[in-house]
Amino acid sequence: MAKKWVYLFKEVDETEKYAGSWDGVRGLLGGKGAGLADMTRAGLPVPPGFTITTEACNAYLESGGKFPDGMWDQALEALEDVEKQTGKKFGDPQNPLLVSVRSGAKFSMPGMMDTVLNVGLNDETVKAMVSLTGNERFAWDAYRRLIQMFGSIVMGIPDEAFSEVMEDLKKERGARLDTDLTADDLKELVRRFEKVYKKHTGSDFPQDPMGQLQLAIEAVFKSWNSNRAIAYRNVAGIPHDLGTAVNVVTMVFGNMGNDSATGVAFTRDPSTGEKKFWGEYLVNAQGEDVVAGIRTPKPIDEMKKEMPQVYRELQEVRERLERHYRDMQDIEFTIERGKLWMLQTRTGKRTARAAIKIAVDMVKEGLISKEEAVMRVTPEQVDTLLHPQFDPKAKENSKVIATGVNASPGAAVGQLAFDADTAEEWAKKEHRDVVMIRPETKPDDVHGMLAAKGILTSRGGATSHAAVVARQFGIPAVVGCEEIEIDLERREARTDKVEMKEGDVVSIDGTAGEVFLGALPTVHPDFTKEKDLATLLGWADEIAAGDMRKWPEDYEGFPTRGLMVWANADYPRDAQRARDFGAMGIGLTRTEHMFFEEERLPIVQRMILAKTSEEREKYLSQLLPFQREDFRGLLRVMAPYPVIIRLIDPPLHEFLPRYESLLAEVIEMRVKGVTGPERDEKESLLAAVEAMREANPMMGMRGVRLSIVMPEIVKMQVRAIFEAACTEKKAGYDVHPEVMIPLVSHVNELKVIQTELEKVAKQVMEEQGIKVHYKFGTMIEIPRAALTAEEIAGVAQFFSFGTNDLTQMTFGFSRDDAEAKFLIQYVEQGILPKNPFQVLDRDGVGKLVKMAARDGRKARPELEIGICGEHGGEPSSIEFCHIAGLNYVSCSPFRVPIARLAAGQAAIKHKGETLG
Amino acid sequence: MAKKWVYLFKEVDETEKYAGSWDGVRGLLGGKGAGLADMTRAGLPVPPGFTITTEACNAYLESGGKFPDGMWDQALEALEDVEKQTGKKFGDPQNPLLVSVRSGAKFSMPGMMDTVLNVGLNDETVKAMVSLTGNERFAWDAYRRLIQMFGSIVMGIPDEAFSEVMEDLKKERGARLDTDLTADDLKELVRRFEKVYKKHTGSDFPQDPMGQLQLAIEAVFKSWNSNRAIAYRNVAGIPHDLGTAVNVVTMVFGNMGNDSATGVAFTRDPSTGEKKFWGEYLVNAQGEDVVAGIRTPKPIDEMKKEMPQVYRELQEVRERLERHYRDMQDIEFTIERGKLWMLQTRTGKRTARAAIKIAVDMVKEGLISKEEAVMRVTPEQVDTLLHPQFDPKAKENSKVIATGVNASPGAAVGQLAFDADTAEEWAKKEHRDVVMIRPETKPDDVHGMLAAKGILTSRGGATSHAAVVARQFGIPAVVGCEEIEIDLERREARTDKVEMKEGDVVSIDGTAGEVFLGALPTVHPDFTKEKDLATLLGWADEIAAGDMRKWPEDYEGFPTRGLMVWANADYPRDAQRARDFGAMGIGLTRTEHMFFEEERLPIVQRMILAKTSEEREKYLSQLLPFQREDFRGLLRVMAPYPVIIRLIDPPLHEFLPRYESLLAEVIEMRVKGVTGPERDEKESLLAAVEAMREANPMMGMRGVRLSIVMPEIVKMQVRAIFEAACTEKKAGYDVHPEVMIPLVSHVNELKVIQTELEKVAKQVMEEQGIKVHYKFGTMIEIPRAALTAEEIAGVAQFFSFGTNDLTQMTFGFSRDDAEAKFLIQYVEQGILPKNPFQVLDRDGVGKLVKMAARDGRKARPELEIGICGEHGGEPSSIEFCHIAGLNYVSCSPFRVPIARLAAGQAAIKHKGETLG
Repeated sequence: MAKKWVYLFKEVDETEKYAGSWDGVRGLLGGKGAGLADMTRAGLPVPPGFTITTEACNAYLESGGKFPDGMWDQALEALEDVEKQTGKKFGDPQNPLLVSVRSGAKFSMPGMMDTVLNVGLNDETVKAMVSLTGNERFAWDAYRRLIQMFGSIVMGIPDEAFSEVMEDLKKERGARLDTDLTADDLKELVRRFEKVYKKHTGSDFPQDPMGQLQLAIEAVFKSWNSNRAIAYRNVAGIPHDLGTAVNVVTMVFGNMGNDSATGVAFTRDPSTGEKKFWGEYLVNAQGEDVVAGIRTPKPIDEMKKEMPQVYRELQEVRERLERHYRDMQDIEFTIERGKLWMLQTRTGKRTARAAIKIAVDMVKEGLISKEEAVMRVTPEQVDTLLHPQFDPKAKENSKVIATGVNASPGAAVGQLAFDADTAEEWAKKEHRDVVMIRPETKPDDVHGMLAAKGILTSRGGATSHAAVVARQFGIPAVVGCEEIEIDLERREARTDKVEMKEGDVVSIDGTAGEVFLGALPTVHPDFTKEKDLATLLGWADEIAAGDMRKWPEDYEGFPTRGLMVWANADYPRDAQRARDFGAMGIGLTRTEHMFFEEERLPIVQRMILAKTSEEREKYLSQLLPFQREDFRGLLRVMAPYPVIIRLIDPPLHEFLPRYESLLAEVIEMRVKGVTGPERDEKESLLAAVEAMREANPMMGMRGVRLSIVMPEIVKMQVRAIFEAACTEKKAGYDVHPEVMIPLVSHVNELKVIQTELEKVAKQVMEEQGIKVHYKFGTMIEIPRAALTAEEIAGVAQFFSFGTNDLTQMTFGFSRDDAEAKFLIQYVEQGILPKNPFQVLDRDGVGKLVKMAARDGRKARPELEIGICGEHGGEPSSIEFCHIAGLNYVSCSPFRVPIARLAAGQAAIKHKGETLG
Repeated sequence: MAKKWVYLFKEVDETEKYAGSWDGVRGLLGGKGAGLADMTRAGLPVPPGFTITTEACNAYLESGGKFPDGMWDQALEALEDVEKQTGKKFGDPQNPLLVSVRSGAKFSMPGMMDTVLNVGLNDETVKAMVSLTGNERFAWDAYRRLIQMFGSIVMGIPDEAFSEVMEDLKKERGARLDTDLTADDLKELVRRFEKVYKKHTGSDFPQDPMGQLQLAIEAVFKSWNSNRAIAYRNVAGIPHDLGTAVNVVTMVFGNMGNDSATGVAFTRDPSTGEKKFWGEYLVNAQGEDVVAGIRTPKPIDEMKKEMPQVYRELQEVRERLERHYRDMQDIEFTIERGKLWMLQTRTGKRTARAAIKIAVDMVKEGLISKEEAVMRVTPEQVDTLLHPQFDPKAKENSKVIATGVNASPGAAVGQLAFDADTAEEWAKKEHRDVVMIRPETKPDDVHGMLAAKGILTSRGGATSHAAVVARQFGIPAVVGCEEIEIDLERREARTDKVEMKEGDVVSIDGTAGEVFLGALPTVHPDFTKEKDLATLLGWADEIAAGDMRKWPEDYEGFPTRGLMVWANADYPRDAQRARDFGAMGIGLTRTEHMFFEEERLPIVQRMILAKTSEEREKYLSQLLPFQREDFRGLLRVMAPYPVIIRLIDPPLHEFLPRYESLLAEVIEMRVKGVTGPERDEKESLLAAVEAMREANPMMGMRGVRLSIVMPEIVKMQVRAIFEAACTEKKAGYDVHPEVMIPLVSHVNELKVIQTELEKVAKQVMEEQGIKVHYKFGTMIEIPRAALTAEEIAGVAQFFSFGTNDLTQMTFGFSRDDAEAKFLIQYVEQGILPKNPFQVLDRDGVGKLVKMAARDGRKARPELEIGICGEHGGEPSSIEFCHIAGLNYVSCSPFRVPIARLAAGQAAIKHKGETLG
């Protein structure tokens, strides 16, 4: 028996049995097909139909364009069943069945693939439609739409070939809108469209309905591999081997008169997340009229008055769908002569803000658990929410030049680009910030939209193509800005008051739907006002802290909770922000940043150039009070949480003038024959800097190596840390300083310097007459340190993975050199799946991290282990840190909320897994 | 019952039972004590005595200077036994027993620790000795020796205090030699020595023999921790916790008249290894007279005439000892009034040449096995043998200014330094080559001797301190050069014909015993003439190849033989030398070296600066014939062995002028206002070089990264390799080229470039109409490559560990920067046990090597794995490579013999161990 390639919507139970799970059904039937089948099972009004599976699509594409054995027969059989259900017959000149042929993949790709409506109409059946509906105009309009869609989608005739003919006819007839055309006009239009069809294809429009159906199905299959679909999947991260299903659905008509309509809606507001019915509809229209943004539709609320009965039905459907799917739904419907038909339901795309609000609300409503809520929001959405917004004061002082629909929130500043190619080129090749402006957008424009910082259109509504794409990818957008008139030819846009040329800078506020001329300054949003986010992240923290994972039985280590989130902060103000964002410690304070401050740098330079130890000590004692004050503030802000302070790390020549500049100055003096003290000073500075030059400074004289050769600096730093800690403790703050020694490669380095420094710490505490709780530990940032972690943990009380340097040395990539010279090419060519400086490389660097964490705990079961590289704020890397059993990730303060969510999600995903 | 701290020589069976093994006995009794006990057991004439154990020494030192419980009583008991054996009594005024108190550690430390002779003499017993021996002069001489030794060694009185007094007396009496002093003179000398003793210590010389014994034992114990002993152990690699034993031995006297003598001998010639009795003796002398080099002794052969009976006895002892110990022995003996007494036997130190000859001869004699022979020679000895020698032609044309004893072979050129401190300072701080010149050397001089390239003395023989130390450490030495008169005050040396000042350059030939003025050129010795070495290395190869090690049962990998030795060679002449030295393949050919040749560099530079791909191809096609010829020679010389050719590795800017020089030139032109084409050219070259500059070139755009971005160069190289291989194969040579891709960190890099290059290889073979056997593989020199070896072995057919770069990146040490700035300090402070660029770091780098070797073979069981870093020629690293299951080590041609020996030794040491 042949494989089953075709499932009727009503066969949903059988489908689910075959597919094994609902996710399997979605994979097999696509999201749309699965939704239609599921709604059918739930007794909702769905037009009869069937789905040809994604497996059939893949078989078709693999065979080079042949339907797999049995598929067509099964489709005909299903069609017969639909005929029985509807009482109509496909191609019947008396009572013809018309169908739509719609694509539908597992993951929604809005507008990317093809749909053909009204399949089954021909010169005969159109007449039957006239007599059945008594609406000649409607029937001919449907026919002309079929020819147009079939021609362009199935046969590849340029859409303009049809629209030009239509515009000509409208001019001839003095018609302004499509609806001004009469039945006879449309009959004429059909004739003219048939000519266009013949001109481009060399043959007549196919009168055989079965032929129409077959070609339409093939067109949908082929559209899976269209360039624009492939490009979309690349960006959205959708695998290329899923294939699309084809849904053959009995046609229902929203354009049968004023008792008919078509619309799309969301069960909650996809922009704010508010629990209110939200959508748009168009009376006497077909579905694509809403999505295409050609006619501006009405808000769904108006339907309450205009079609109260249908509105009530829709409300009931809305509630049933949310209960059923336990998530916000995006639905399409058609009303045919007062009867509601559901054409689609799927999980609705939403803004970051809406995602968070809906997740939190649904927990409160008892619809979903806290874990589900945490999984419903992506770290990227949290990031989007915390993106900069326009400074309210600047907005007050600027003039809004146009307003439109606030289709996708956020602030964007950029130069106007009038088409997608220009937008992409400017953004990618010239690194310019771009706002793409178009009357409306189409699937072909997506590459430009993705490259742009913001999107601006003069037509379309909140469910238009531009709006949907912008929301999905978190690009700020203002759409349907009708005040703006766009002249694509002259590449200009104008309102009553201003004129804008291509390249002019505008600012668009996607949250407010406002457009400004020039660049407005941005500010960070006020995190404390994001109550829903705070609630959600609180749950994430709770989940991570409650997750207690054990080691396998053959290994004796302490169990480990889920990850805490700490922050990297050098100054008290950063630490305060981190704490506000929910950080529970400071994982990295870079002490050398403080050395660069204006009043300190000259002292630092004199200290470095000191010829004797005494001279060096003199300048260090001038630096001590500065450092002590730095540390006091940090420790106080973070009490009672720990603060890890890293001792000086960079090579000393970083604090001195650049060698090349000095060389140039000195050579100039030499050639000009300048003499005197200035020359002498430059010459001796040049000599000093030259003596410090290194072939590969990244792997040279820095970190613990410097401390061993020149211990005075770190001794001063440790004195400053402990003086600060003692002072704050006396003032009543429960401080926890942790001293971190960088760049250790051999345990003996740590032994030597840690012994010295602990002496200083103890001496200070004795002088001050108070003891503070402290730790000494090390960064694990050199492969050898990770490889010998067991020995190192015998000395260090904590490990902090410095994955920036660890990645450099594990890959042998100097980041400065690699990113500019070959790393981007590597990622583009797929040699590396990701830039390993952004996403932690699990196979290589991660292997070292895992080994070191495990070996370190062998020597010291209570070892505190974290990560302080940039990866600490990147969700996939955070998940890996959870898997590796780390105690915390430390990231920049602004990424703390993202990291908290990612840590919670990691705990949920890996619940019950053992460590190691 | 108290622990047994004291063993009589004759209790040797009991000692062995306690110690568990003969090595244990040597540890417990020291080498000297064990030898005396063993000779006693064998029935050889050994004066009765006993040994206080090293355990007692350690207990004494740990307790801060107390004999452990029971030790002294046991010593007294043993002394009583010795009294019974000799029929004498310690301290008896009629028939006194005299003893020597001698140090003796497990490993010989010549001259480093202390000995006191004639213990038991006092004002009473000296009289008994006079009447017993009827030799007044002898008795008083013995007494003055005791006071002198006891005073200087036990009480720390400077030796000069005694020698000055003696010199004064000799002047008063008009005596030239010590032996010119009469009995009365010596009596007077004793009185004067007693005054010296009192002056320096504040008390009288102890008349109580038991007190003498106790203090002497303590002095020996303490000498273990003298500065010079510690320094010696540091250099010789002897652990500091072994302790020394103390041997208390009945005195026998070689200075009782002309029927008495004392001597040292080797059972074979320690310089050449020839099987002939070899030694020296002094009639009417005590032992230290021979060793100290004060009187020049007679060759042992003369004894045949002078004391034929004793000579026969000695010959018999010699044969018995060699049969017993199955190795060449170094013996000390004394003849007291015609009776032979054996005072020591130990394994004799020998030159490199002797070590090899003795090992090979003893196999032929059936005394030892081939495995034992291979273990008897150290890789350092092979190295010494292959050290450069003076060019014979240059020697013919130079005048020998002095000849002496050829005490330690080899050629040395250096500046004369007249004392040890100067020698050390010049060598270590100023990196000057030094020849240390002294009348004779003492243990205090060892630090200077070790720092020197050569040693020259005017006194002493082949067993003098200078000779023994020089031989042990492989430092060329000419001793007893009596023609040279040394003036230490004026720091000058002179012969009849020449005068030399400190700092003058001399050349010394330790093999011939000749001294030249100025620097003579050196040449490499002719390996083919070293038949014994060839035999020995042949056995080492045989052992390595015959050693087949298996993986543990839970792992399916191919069994691995012991290591082969390959060589790194860039040119056919190097490859030929490597083959002559026994290399069985080329493990690394660096192709970029060829780019630097005079006629090629301009083409290379134009190729690098090419603006278009076509232009680049043009210059590459000019380079192709050069490279092809390079490879033809290499492949032909090595056939049928494999030749691994590494594709271009360094960053391209290494082929261009240095940035700093260009900058200086351009700035000068700018300041001077130079215009014209020369300026333009420099400016544009500067711009090009600037664009290529990198922050850390070691980790930048080089190796496979360069090949991916700019594949033209490596395509040319692969074409050259395969054109060469095809040509040579057509000429009848069985060539095996292997193409090595450097600096891989991710398997995809290899996949991309290897695919490209294999296409070129196949195309060339098609063009040439012949197929050659080839492999493609990679260097494992980046930590990530080692960590992901399993994936990489899916593509690569061989691995070659580049442990130079792997060490750099695993430690995060840039070698150029680290060695100059902190690495030497690290090794000196003991932070790192060894310089990891010299000796492979087993804990860190080695861990990666082991993981990668094992994981690589998981993916490809037949994977060919070797090492081509400098470590490939270093014995400890070679042993590690054997443990890790590598197939070969590749080293510089000159180190091939050393590596062959080390590989054989590794196979013996780790026989039967499983892999992994």
